[in-house]
Amino acid sequence: MAQVNYEALIRNVPDFPIPGVQFKDITTLLRNGPAFQSVINSIADQYRDQQVDIVAGVESRGFIFSAPVAYQLGAGLVPIRKPGKLPADTIEVAYSLEYGTNTLQMHADAFPRGARVLLVDDLLATGGTIAAAVQLVNQLGGEIVGLAFVIELGFLNGRATLGEYPIFSLVRY
Amino acid sequence: MAQVNYEALIRNVPDFPIPGVQFKDITTLLRNGPAFQSVINSIADQYRDQQVDIVAGVESRGFIFSAPVAYQLGAGLVPIRKPGKLPADTIEVAYSLEYGTNTLQMHADAFPRGARVLLVDDLLATGGTIAAAVQLVNQLGGEIVGLAFVIELGFLNGRATLGEYPIFSLVRY
Repeated sequence: MAQVNYEALIRNVPDFPIPGVQFKDITTLLRNGPAFQSVINSIADQYRDQQVDIVAGVESRGFIFSAPVAYQLGAGLVPIRKPGKLPADTIEVAYSLEYGTNTLQMHADAFPRGARVLLVDDLLATGGTIAAAVQLVNQLGGEIVGLAFVIELGFLNGRATLGEYPIFSLVRY
Repeated sequence: MAQVNYEALIRNVPDFPIPGVQFKDITTLLRNGPAFQSVINSIADQYRDQQVDIVAGVESRGFIFSAPVAYQLGAGLVPIRKPGKLPADTIEVAYSLEYGTNTLQMHADAFPRGARVLLVDDLLATGGTIAAAVQLVNQLGGEIVGLAFVIELGFLNGRATLGEYPIFSLVRY
């Protein structure tokens, strides 16, 4: 298939969720079947020979990309969720946001120690969310293969927080 | 691949989210790569010759299955979300729950009139959520190809609410 122009398919929504923010709306990309397939294949291709056991994704938009990448790689999917959503025993990490804090949980038996884990999310902004996800994976003794994003907001310098892990992003602003 | 015993991979969590409920935990199925692939293939196989344009899924657990099914079928993915999450113009439907009401939104330009839409969700319980999703798709003039679920709680009789549409479920209780 010809190279897909992802940027042309991502809609810019001004002043969402708050005035002054230019929101990158991926729904215009998702509704295009061939473009969505191409996104998933492009991410999966980066890790095809890296024996990924588990793909972990953060709710909710993260599930949209982590689930098909797991499917494509034949890996298991581990959901990382907001408090109170996962039914069995969990571990958790709290992290700071611009306003207040947030908490993420993962099942305590999500994968065995030493599992090779790929983290997939829609967006790398300041990196706070994915850094919390990395902490959860490390707590269970997972080996992080890489961090993959559809969009990277380079000007927010999220890479600075995540320096030691290999990062892949498809579209950079 | 040999037939996967899905029921053996779904964990039963008693008294979640409230006392007396036996919660069907799919995370133990998801973390098994071959089983997860088999779930997605089994759903996609039902619709392969039905020219599905769009797969619509309800956040958040619904994304885990709708996204890979869309990917597998080469269809677009349309997310149906809780209020305030979708950045552009939306349509919405409110529906009753056991306690209070809930609202779901979809982008007003999610797909063109006449698009062939498959709805995929993790669970068919009383059918309230998926009936609201059906209303959203109908409001935009979508043609509903079918409703697909991983788990159906038959004793809650959700099918009664959704009688006119073809329903597929993988595991029935």
